[in-house]
Amino acid sequence: MGLEIERKFLVHTGKLPALPGLGSKELLRQGYLASDPWVRIRLRSVMDRWRKGYITIKSRGTLVRAEYEYEIPAKDAEELLGFCKGLISKTRYPIRKSSHVWEIDEFHGPLQGLWLAEVELQRENEDLVIPEWVGTEVTEDVRYSNAYLVEYGIPSV
Amino acid sequence: MGLEIERKFLVHTGKLPALPGLGSKELLRQGYLASDPWVRIRLRSVMDRWRKGYITIKSRGTLVRAEYEYEIPAKDAEELLGFCKGLISKTRYPIRKSSHVWEIDEFHGPLQGLWLAEVELQRENEDLVIPEWVGTEVTEDVRYSNAYLVEYGIPSV
Repeated sequence: MGLEIERKFLVHTGKLPALPGLGSKELLRQGYLASDPWVRIRLRSVMDRWRKGYITIKSRGTLVRAEYEYEIPAKDAEELLGFCKGLISKTRYPIRKSSHVWEIDEFHGPLQGLWLAEVELQRENEDLVIPEWVGTEVTEDVRYSNAYLVEYGIPSV
Repeated sequence: MGLEIERKFLVHTGKLPALPGLGSKELLRQGYLASDPWVRIRLRSVMDRWRKGYITIKSRGTLVRAEYEYEIPAKDAEELLGFCKGLISKTRYPIRKSSHVWEIDEFHGPLQGLWLAEVELQRENEDLVIPEWVGTEVTEDVRYSNAYLVEYGIPSV
């Protein structure tokens, strides 16, 4: 098991630096095979230079979650996305800032217009330098979880 | 993806031959992370000579099902069983008969007393020699699926 400690923020897109291009950015397509009260099972197809697939089991929680992730054949991931209730498509740009790597997600399709920034921490109370292009924290706002977004769309407020 | 074609039967336990012992039989513990209308996600911990773990995604269906199975660390499987709604524990004995391998499952715990025999086929209409210890076919009887058994127990009729 891994323990995932992750904070999530809105993004001031006008203040973003130049985003990394091909070779660094990834195109992610993901969906949920199950989104039960206690556990979520995510399928993800990643396209960077190569195509990869992952199945991930996450316990519920916002800041801290148990996470089990396994790489699976890309072809299986594509097929299994067909079993998911809805799909999210987004481009992920990694940006290093001080000692952290921020992942900027630009959503596509029905979620076009939404940008989110995530940063993974080693400890819950770890110091974090917040760049100027990072907006309101939404770590504890379940409406910004991908499982909610795929079902309900962009939150109205 | 694999396509799983499997027939399932009750067992006349009094007519069973000597069952294989250590080295062939396996102790299986399994549970379901999700059991939705369209898909089931099974966690399984297998103890034969070694301890192994698997995560399996199966489409719904009785005789023919899409199946995706991945080996995962045994320790992860044990931990993930803790996320499952209920657990099934059974000993599996493989018995070769003509060109098929039958898997005889002896259930434990709340399902003690139940025995089932499964045989995997290459084609739906494949010839099959039915041994004398094989009873009523229950392939299409969803009450004998493991996901139902874990929730509702041994069928009353």
